[in-house]
Amino acid sequence: MSTIYAGVDLGGTSFVAVVANRKGRVLGSSDCVTTPDASSEETLSQIGDHILIAAKEASVKMSTIRAIGVGAPGAVDLERGIVVRAPNLGWTDVPLAATLRKRLRTDVVLGNDVQVAILGEHAYGAAKGRDRAVGIWVGTGIGGGLIANGRIDRGFRGAAGEIGHMVINEDGPECSCGRRGCVEALASRSAMERDVRAASPESAALTIMKERNKDRMTSSVIARALEQNDAVMREVVARAQHYLGLLAGNIVNMFDPEMIVIGGGVAQRLKEAFVGPIADVARSRFLRPDPEHRIRIEHAKLGDYSGALGACALARQTI
Amino acid sequence: MSTIYAGVDLGGTSFVAVVANRKGRVLGSSDCVTTPDASSEETLSQIGDHILIAAKEASVKMSTIRAIGVGAPGAVDLERGIVVRAPNLGWTDVPLAATLRKRLRTDVVLGNDVQVAILGEHAYGAAKGRDRAVGIWVGTGIGGGLIANGRIDRGFRGAAGEIGHMVINEDGPECSCGRRGCVEALASRSAMERDVRAASPESAALTIMKERNKDRMTSSVIARALEQNDAVMREVVARAQHYLGLLAGNIVNMFDPEMIVIGGGVAQRLKEAFVGPIADVARSRFLRPDPEHRIRIEHAKLGDYSGALGACALARQTI
Repeated sequence: MSTIYAGVDLGGTSFVAVVANRKGRVLGSSDCVTTPDASSEETLSQIGDHILIAAKEASVKMSTIRAIGVGAPGAVDLERGIVVRAPNLGWTDVPLAATLRKRLRTDVVLGNDVQVAILGEHAYGAAKGRDRAVGIWVGTGIGGGLIANGRIDRGFRGAAGEIGHMVINEDGPECSCGRRGCVEALASRSAMERDVRAASPESAALTIMKERNKDRMTSSVIARALEQNDAVMREVVARAQHYLGLLAGNIVNMFDPEMIVIGGGVAQRLKEAFVGPIADVARSRFLRPDPEHRIRIEHAKLGDYSGALGACALARQTI
Repeated sequence: MSTIYAGVDLGGTSFVAVVANRKGRVLGSSDCVTTPDASSEETLSQIGDHILIAAKEASVKMSTIRAIGVGAPGAVDLERGIVVRAPNLGWTDVPLAATLRKRLRTDVVLGNDVQVAILGEHAYGAAKGRDRAVGIWVGTGIGGGLIANGRIDRGFRGAAGEIGHMVINEDGPECSCGRRGCVEALASRSAMERDVRAASPESAALTIMKERNKDRMTSSVIARALEQNDAVMREVVARAQHYLGLLAGNIVNMFDPEMIVIGGGVAQRLKEAFVGPIADVARSRFLRPDPEHRIRIEHAKLGDYSGALGACALARQTI
C-alpha cells in the first residue's frame, strides 16, 4: 500500500485539507472558510477536524497517515514549526506544528504557503521533473519561490523568492511594503483593483462586485469582466501582464531556470490567456535568446490543490 | 609541494596571467596589452608566452603546472572550450582550450570572465567561506554571477547571473542590448560617461580625459575627478550607486545570498566609498530586515587578480 500524507493549505480566510498518496493523487479533501476573529487555537482545532474529514473521505485511519504538511502565510519558523507573524490571520508566534501534532498524534511539517504551492507544482503539476524552476504567484500580493536541484531553494536566511518586491519601475506607485516601484504594486490583484477603480467608477468589474456583494475584486470578478469584454479590465490586465513579463524576464536573466510557473487565482481562471502575453514580454527580454522555447513558462496545473498537495510533498520530502 | 595552477584573465584590450598555488598565493604573474586587430591565433600565442613568463617568475616548470584556467569575455562554450562570440575581441568560434592545450601540453579549462572573477573572490577573496554569494561586476557593462553551495551556479543553460539587464526602471535610457530600463544603462561606467557628457562639456572628468589622451572615461578618470571634488562626477556616481543599490536589493530579495561582492575597476579604486552607499540603498529595500548585517555587501578584495586567480580556482575545481 502506498504511503499516505495529509496536506493543508492555510490562507487568510479559508483553508484546504487533503489526504493524498505519494504520487499526489487526492484520496479525500475538505475545505473550510475560517471564522473571522477566531483565536489561533480555534482555527487549529478546525484544521484538525477537516484533516479527519478528509481522511474519512479517503477511507484511511489517521494512524496510517505518515505525516502532515502545512503551508502557512506570513513569516514562518520552519525548524520550530511556528507561525511567527501572519498579518492576514492576525497570528503571532503560533506553535502550529506542536499543536496539530499533539491533537492528531502525527508528525507535522510547516512551510511558507507560496514555497509550498510551488513545491506542489514541482512534485505533481506543471514543473514535474524540472530541476530548476521559479514560481510567480499572483494574488492580493505577489509571492514566489525557487526550486533548485529539485528542492525548495530557501536561500541563506530562508527568505529566497520574495520576487513581489523586485523594483521594476522605481517611479511606480507605492507598495504595501511602504516602498515604491515593486512589481507587486504594479501587477498584483490589488494593483489591478486600484487601477480599475481609478479608470472609471462605472467599469464592469465594479458593477459585478456590487451584484455579487463583494468588496474586493476577486479573480472570478476579473474573469467575468473579461468575458463581458470590458475595455477597462482588458487594459488593466494587459498592463499587469506587461509588468509580470518584465519580472519573468528579470528572473530568467538572473537565475536561468528551466521553467517559470505562474499561479494564483487569476492564472488559474484565465490560464493560457493570462500566461501567454506574460511569456511573450518575458521572452522579448531574454538576454540569451531561446528560440526553441527550452525554457517553459506555464500556468500552475493543480488548481485549488497546488498548496495542499505541495504540503503533502513537503511532508514526504522532510519526514 | 603544493599543486600549482596557471590562470588567465582575458579582457577586451589586455590580459593577466598568473601562476599560483592551491591557496591562491600568486607565485608569478605577467600582464600584457593585446595588439589591436591581432588574429585570435596571435593573441593565443601571446597568452601562451605570458603563461611561460609567469611560470619562470614563479620558478616552476610548465610540467609541474596541474592545469590552466582561462576566463574569457562574451559567450563561451565551457564544455568544448570554445569562445563562441566575443565582440570585444572580435572573436567567433575560437577553440581557445584546444589551442593552448596543444601549445603548452597542459589541460585547459575555459570559463566566463565575470563568473570566473566571482569564483576567485569566493576561493581566495571577499567571499571566502561564503556558500551563497552574488557578484556584481561594474565596468563598461554590468556583469554578474551566482555562487551556490560553494560553486558557480550556472543555471539551466549556463546563462545565470545576467543581472546587468535586469529592468529596474523601464522608462530608463536605451541599453547596449537594444532594450530600455536595464540597470546596465543606468549604472555602468558607460552610463556614467554618458551622464557626465550630458551634464556639462566642461566637467572635470572630460578635462582629465583630454589631459590623459583617453577617449573613454576609465575608472582612474572617475577616481581623479572625485578627488578634485567635481560636482558633476559626485552626482553621476551617486546616481549609479542608487541604481546599483536597487539592483542589490532585488538580488537579495530574490536569491537571499549570504554575501554580495561588488567588483570591477570603479569598485577596486573607490572601495568602501563606492560600496557603502550601494549597501545602504540595498538594505532599505530588504523585505526581510537584516539589522545585524548578516548579509555582507563588500567590494572585491583581489584587485587586478580576481579574474586570474578565479581562473586558477576554476582549473582546480574542474580538473
